[in-house]
Amino acid sequence: MVKKIINNPKNFVDEMISGLLRAYPNKLRTVNEDPREVVRVDAPIDGKVAIATGGGSGHLPVFKGYVGEGLCDGVAIGDVFQSPSAEQMANVTKEIAGGEGVLYLYGNYGGDVMNFDMAAEMVEMDGIEVETVLVKDDVASAPKGEEENRRGIAGLFYGYKIAGAAADKGYDLKQTAKTTRKALDNIRSMGVALSPCRLPEAKKPTFEIEEDEMEIGMGIHGEPGIKREKLKSADEVTKRMLEKILEDGPYKSGDEVSVLINSLGATPKEELYIVYRKVWEILNDRDIEIYNKYIGEYATSLEMKGMSITLFKLNEEFKKLLKAPACSPFFVQE
Amino acid sequence: MVKKIINNPKNFVDEMISGLLRAYPNKLRTVNEDPREVVRVDAPIDGKVAIATGGGSGHLPVFKGYVGEGLCDGVAIGDVFQSPSAEQMANVTKEIAGGEGVLYLYGNYGGDVMNFDMAAEMVEMDGIEVETVLVKDDVASAPKGEEENRRGIAGLFYGYKIAGAAADKGYDLKQTAKTTRKALDNIRSMGVALSPCRLPEAKKPTFEIEEDEMEIGMGIHGEPGIKREKLKSADEVTKRMLEKILEDGPYKSGDEVSVLINSLGATPKEELYIVYRKVWEILNDRDIEIYNKYIGEYATSLEMKGMSITLFKLNEEFKKLLKAPACSPFFVQE
Repeated sequence: MVKKIINNPKNFVDEMISGLLRAYPNKLRTVNEDPREVVRVDAPIDGKVAIATGGGSGHLPVFKGYVGEGLCDGVAIGDVFQSPSAEQMANVTKEIAGGEGVLYLYGNYGGDVMNFDMAAEMVEMDGIEVETVLVKDDVASAPKGEEENRRGIAGLFYGYKIAGAAADKGYDLKQTAKTTRKALDNIRSMGVALSPCRLPEAKKPTFEIEEDEMEIGMGIHGEPGIKREKLKSADEVTKRMLEKILEDGPYKSGDEVSVLINSLGATPKEELYIVYRKVWEILNDRDIEIYNKYIGEYATSLEMKGMSITLFKLNEEFKKLLKAPACSPFFVQE
Repeated sequence: MVKKIINNPKNFVDEMISGLLRAYPNKLRTVNEDPREVVRVDAPIDGKVAIATGGGSGHLPVFKGYVGEGLCDGVAIGDVFQSPSAEQMANVTKEIAGGEGVLYLYGNYGGDVMNFDMAAEMVEMDGIEVETVLVKDDVASAPKGEEENRRGIAGLFYGYKIAGAAADKGYDLKQTAKTTRKALDNIRSMGVALSPCRLPEAKKPTFEIEEDEMEIGMGIHGEPGIKREKLKSADEVTKRMLEKILEDGPYKSGDEVSVLINSLGATPKEELYIVYRKVWEILNDRDIEIYNKYIGEYATSLEMKGMSITLFKLNEEFKKLLKAPACSPFFVQE
């Protein structure tokens, strides 16, 4: 059993959103009083491409935590690990559209893709142009050559950061989509899970794992990874994951990268820094320079123990977009 | 067993610090190449009261996470849940002293008090004036009337914020100490634990707790709380803790407060917002206004599941100090 500080499990998502709206009334508001449709309080921003995202709950700060300046304009919120409806996505889209079109930016999961595609058709009738960019950063979720089938995990954060900054800088819809796609082509992630999470309404955890085991490559909903094996040292796990990322992606000596060390929920910050230490060493040995880093909770899976590593190969444009101002209740770019 | 992403447990603290220093070379540096003595990279700041803190590891962002602008100037870092040495504290003190004296600000734990007091005597010989302020915000750790015996928990965060801002604004040592003490008189916290943590070198968790139990008032090292009982709903737990805080402290109708909802390490952010929702309701019912709030990990206990609630009754001076700029690798005041 995984213990939780909750009330009736059926109200988990709505009560959480209620807390969020009470905490940030000057930053977030609902659409049509539906707590599952949340937008920036100042939406729509005229003359700017709007960024919409969405997906299941249980991944804070993904997705709703990235609604804010320099990030997303609105989010459709599903039940835990469930897609929101096409109608909710369409409502959010209409609310944030500022005349320059809307970018749909979210993780590559079947239900979300279906519903966002339907929403795009729905809002087309209102004359709102939509471009879609899917985040597919998890190298463990499908082999090289089958990138189209990969899942989106912590790389979502970089997607929001780049798209949001591009939109703020006045890129048009096509340019914003193109730039974000290009950024994502340079982004790879991989995760490891040590313990499962439990859905609020479930009696059992999302998966079983032995007391001395870990699963490398496991997804943020407990999707199977590459290999289940005996728990290894932080250095070994880090090395294995980072090497897989380095093999798969465009990273080479002389490159500059941004590094994201992400907790899946229950991992102490202390352990994330032990991982970062090893990532730094390996990249240093390969003459890959760390331009900046993010260490903490960026895409979680309720109380899952584990972490993911993400690399983002930068160019001058991406560096500017990465350092551009951004501010949501869960993320501030210093 | 609680699984960890670590290497040799003996190296847990030093590897974590090594990661931290590699992540923030422009913000933090060591003293005498001792990784357990960490200061702001620009220390000492001439003409400003310096703030020193310290204590055991395993509580990130407490203590080392609050070294930065508008917060602490230096920290002495112990092993997990162990005090650093008096000599380390003295070295940090000498490194950060900017001619206006040094404030020792830390949690009320025996080993830390003994070592900081010894350090104060050691640096006195170098002509450095020291004032000490102990954080004792945990209402569950001793009854009313015995406040001197209370432990320091998440209220540490507010202590750093107020003291750091006061020092930045040019308060002298006596004023900084007096203002911080007055702030702490208006601060009360209480925690609840649902699951234990495990020390890196230990085979067993810090305590045992049944699958359907919680312990209200448990400390951040697993110190006994007020009562162990069956796990209750988030609303009931929140109500119980907040009422105890409200009874104990100076909070009354018409007051303005700052609220801190703190995860002890493994609690999903979603649950913290469910708690905040209820805190908002109760305070609203009592006509106590929430001036601002902090929701996240501010003082943890490795991977302990649970949370604490802290209230800080504000006046105009405290509001200014709370909103003053602050920036460390783990905390940015927006």
